[in-house]
Formats: sequence, structure tokens, C-alpha cells
Amino acid sequence: MGASGPFYLGIDLGGTNIKIGIVDDSGHSVAKTSIPTLAAEGWRSGVKRMGQAARELAAKSGMKLSDLEAAGIGSPGPMDLKRQILLNPHNLPGWHDTAIAEKVSEECELPAVLQNDANAAAYGEYWVGAGKGRHSLVQFTLGTGIGCGIVIAGAILEGEHSHGAEAGHQRISLDSSRRNGTGLFGSLEAYASAPAVVARLVEAVSAGHPSSLASRLAEREELTSKEVFDAADAGDELAKRIVDETAFYLAIGAVNLMHIIDPDVVVYSGGMIAAGDSFLDMIRAYVRDNALPVPAEKTKVLYALLGTDAGFIGAAGCARRKFGISR
Amino acid sequence: MGASGPFYLGIDLGGTNIKIGIVDDSGHSVAKTSIPTLAAEGWRSGVKRMGQAARELAAKSGMKLSDLEAAGIGSPGPMDLKRQILLNPHNLPGWHDTAIAEKVSEECELPAVLQNDANAAAYGEYWVGAGKGRHSLVQFTLGTGIGCGIVIAGAILEGEHSHGAEAGHQRISLDSSRRNGTGLFGSLEAYASAPAVVARLVEAVSAGHPSSLASRLAEREELTSKEVFDAADAGDELAKRIVDETAFYLAIGAVNLMHIIDPDVVVYSGGMIAAGDSFLDMIRAYVRDNALPVPAEKTKVLYALLGTDAGFIGAAGCARRKFGISR
Repeated sequence: MGASGPFYLGIDLGGTNIKIGIVDDSGHSVAKTSIPTLAAEGWRSGVKRMGQAARELAAKSGMKLSDLEAAGIGSPGPMDLKRQILLNPHNLPGWHDTAIAEKVSEECELPAVLQNDANAAAYGEYWVGAGKGRHSLVQFTLGTGIGCGIVIAGAILEGEHSHGAEAGHQRISLDSSRRNGTGLFGSLEAYASAPAVVARLVEAVSAGHPSSLASRLAEREELTSKEVFDAADAGDELAKRIVDETAFYLAIGAVNLMHIIDPDVVVYSGGMIAAGDSFLDMIRAYVRDNALPVPAEKTKVLYALLGTDAGFIGAAGCARRKFGISR
Repeated sequence: MGASGPFYLGIDLGGTNIKIGIVDDSGHSVAKTSIPTLAAEGWRSGVKRMGQAARELAAKSGMKLSDLEAAGIGSPGPMDLKRQILLNPHNLPGWHDTAIAEKVSEECELPAVLQNDANAAAYGEYWVGAGKGRHSLVQFTLGTGIGCGIVIAGAILEGEHSHGAEAGHQRISLDSSRRNGTGLFGSLEAYASAPAVVARLVEAVSAGHPSSLASRLAEREELTSKEVFDAADAGDELAKRIVDETAFYLAIGAVNLMHIIDPDVVVYSGGMIAAGDSFLDMIRAYVRDNALPVPAEKTKVLYALLGTDAGFIGAAGCARRKFGISR
């Protein structure tokens, strides 16, 4: 498992933390660290601390930043990928309208490329994770929102206006009673994100359905989606129904992509996949029931393999793809 | 407008007719004809008559088939594009499991390529129609079904199992009361194809809503979607509502593709666009209301320009792309 150069810097910029890693040419993480984003302090502070952390990380690995080939940054959107500029990500209030690739490039003295965080994570799984060796991949990242990334023949589907693969926003329902964080009605995210799972359980309890979680809610405690999944595992009938419906909604989102992109593999990543293989099997069963015969039989539906490292590994992979000396 | 070689043969194979055209290197139709498919007589008869018609067409243009560079065939699916084989298209009963590109190639003594008909039509509009000069295009063909084709940077999105761009099958509703011809519930096609427009009006009349079309239905006459659009134009309130809802469903289908593919342009083709610009403007308004801000502002929503010639022009374009001497 000896690391072999060239090496790339991968940066996964989040609203709370910045994960930074050095990744070798085979996609292995050589060293990694994490620093707080402190988003409200603005991009100047963030980029400076990011550079400092990267230099320390390189030093620990017996390198200097100048030994690396290039840097990749995955960030929440919206962004303008053609201009390589962050627009107004709501969880990065001090970073709006910033040419972040350019700023990181200046700070680290490396060529740098910006990519959407869900796209970068999908690229990581495509490169060295659940999609390794496949020709094409669609990945859904299940969390507070539902991110998506699409990779076809090694290229990320960015779209003309940096809105490619925003498939968490695909509308799966004509019902306008549910909306997601961006205000879109009936979207996959409005039905199957972690907060949506909790919201659907809370609604059902409010409507009088019995649940072992009802007393927690009566005490106004905040539930997590994990607790809903745990209650389902413990036999709570309502929680089981909510989990089953979540698998159905996710399957509909996957089937739509199987009828639009038709990838080799659909991958799920993010916190919710801790629910384990039984949840994946539920999704797979609904996919088979709802897809056309050929994709129903042939498209693989898998969990991601890289965990929370996918973001910086994928960002490093994007740098390698754009600036790398070996492709 | 003088035609300049090289020339390509374009074949639009349908369940009822086969349209055949000779197309020049700029995408202009030099000559065209149409013969009955007589699908039940099988592919041998069809391919032989197709070759005969193509030879006559070439002769009328002062050419022989051997003066052409290559042939492209657009056909209804399902098909296996990698193996270039028709599988079991339900409206081509005598053509199942046929290596149709190979058979046409033998008959016409030209290199030949098979493509999905909706993909070929989309490629035609991308090459020389509503998408000319754009980087990417999503096209919906509105008819008995809803076909779709996606072209990005000159390449057709075929998918891994020839199910790319089957976006008429995208599920836009969790309601399972409507299904399309392939048995999928809640699909765009189940809501907004021509038969679905009629079915929604018939349902509403049956439920007691007044309409100028009610007497026609009482006499068990079969309505067409055109009659529903005409009744709306004439002021029928129910028909106006049905048309408005159709525009909404089509807009949801477009918005989903704007959040997945994010093309430069979404194009509508097929019989239903005879409804005219007021219908297109209704779709555009719903697109603006339901898309994220950037694509809502930037993505063009247009009608196709090539009419029923798009299929053979696009098929010829696919031949040019694959075998052409100038690209």
C-alpha cells in the first residue's frame, strides 16, 4: 500500500468543517485532516487556514505543498463552474461571489479546480469506490438534503448552467404539500431527505398513529432520521412504514435516472446508508418493480464505499483529471 | 441552396410508414419519399422495399446509392444500440430480434447505423433545427407516447442499456391511477401524451363537468387531442383546464431534465405542437415557476423546426457522425 506520486490536494468545503486530504495517483488517501469552516468569518480567513492546514498535512507526510500537482475543491452550490465562482451557498455566508479556485490556487501555489460537492463525491466513488471500473454512475448523497452526481465515461455531467445532476430536486409528486429547502414542491428531497423522514413520522404521530416515538415527540424532543430507522428495526410499525416509504421514494428517484441517464450503477452515500443492507434491499425491490425490464435487470444499485472521505478524494480526482500528468 | 456532397441516406422507420430521405452534408433534405411499413410482413420484405425506394429516390436526384456515404435508421425501441439490434418493438411485430443496421447495410451496400427514433429526431433538431448552434438539447416528442432524445456536445445520450433519454417514462406523480403504454405508473407519458389528454377530458366529463365535447362523447365518438385543444381555443372551460394542466405536466417533465441534464434548450416536437405559441407560452410560464432560478432564467424552451422530416434528417446525421468524411 505504498503511496506513489504524483499527489493531489483534495478539499471538501462544508458549512461546518473543511476536510483536507492528500491523495495519491491511485486514489488512496495518504493523509487527512479537518478544520472548522467558521463560515461567517469569510473566505479570506477560511482560505488562509485551509492553506496552513494543507502545509502542515504535507509536512507530516514528508512533503511540501509544492511537491503536489494540483488541488481540487468540492463545495456546496450554487456555483458557476464555467467561471469557477461560488455564487450564494446558504451555508457559506461569508463566501458568496468568490472565485474560490483562484484564491486556493494563490494560497497553495498550485493549479486548482472547483467542483460541486455532490459531483466531487460521486467522482470519488466512480474513481476508486463503488463505481470503480464502471463506465457510468449516478450517486445520491442522502443527508439534510439529497445531493446527486453523475459521471459518464469519466466526465462529470455539469450541465450548461452548473445545474446538472441536481436530481434531489427532481419532482416525483404532483402534490404540493411538501417542499424542500430551496422551496421546490414535491421533490425527491422533500420526500426522502433525513429531515423529510422525521417530518413524515411526526405528521403521522400528530394524525394519531401510535408509535414508540410518540412520547419523545410529546416532550418536544427533536428526532433524527437514525432514531426513526432504529425504531423500525426494533419493530415499531409506524417507523417501519415510514422507512418502507422512504425506500420507495428513493427507488422512484433512482428509476427516473435509470430512464434518463441509464447508468451502469446507482450509488447511495451519506448518513442514511448506516441503515444497512436491509434498507438497500428494500430500495432494490422497489427499483425492480418500477423500472423498465432491461434496466430493472441490469442496473446495479449499491451503497458507497468511501464514507466521508469521498468528498476530498473526489475533489483530488477532479484536480488529477484536469491537471494530472497521468490520466 | 445548391446541395453539396457528401450525401447520406436517412430512414425513419415507423409502425405505419417508412420515411426515406437523401440529406446533404449541411443537413438539407435533397429528396424524400415514404412507403408503407407493412410491419406484419416482416423485416425481409420491409428492408427490400426500403432499398428499392432508396434506389429510386437516388435515381430521381441523379445519383446511385453508391454515391452516398452511409445510411442511418431511426426506429422505435426497445433496441440494443451496442449490438445494433432491434429487440421487440410492439408496433414492428415482424422485425423482432433483427440486426437491422446490418440488413440495411447489405441491401443498400452502404455502412449503416441504427438509432432510437426519438434520439434520431432530437439529433436532427440539434444538427439543423431548433437546437442548431447550441451545445446541448433535450427534446420531447409529443404523440401517442412521449419520446425523448438528449444530445450533449454532439453526442446522443444512449445510456449503458439503450435506455438513455426515455424521459417520457419519468415518474412525475406518486398517484398510481394512471399508467402509460408500457405499464409504468404516474409517468409523464401517462399524464401528457395525446391519448392522456383525451382520457383526462373524458374522465372529467364522466364525472359531470360540462363541456362542449360532451355530446360527442355521449355518441361514443372517439376524440383526438387536437379536438380538445380546438375546444379550448373556442372557449370550452373544461378543455381549457385540461390544456392548462397538460402544459403544467409537460413543464414538470422539462424542469426535471433541467435539474438533471441542464441543457441549453428544451425542444418540443410532434403533433401536439400544432396547438401553437399560446400553448408553448403556458409551458414556459410553468417552467419559470417550477425551476431553480438559474435554469429558469437561462434555459430556452422552444418548438422544433423540422416537422416530420426530423426523423430521417437526424438518422442521416447519425450516419454522418459515425461514418462521415467531414465532421
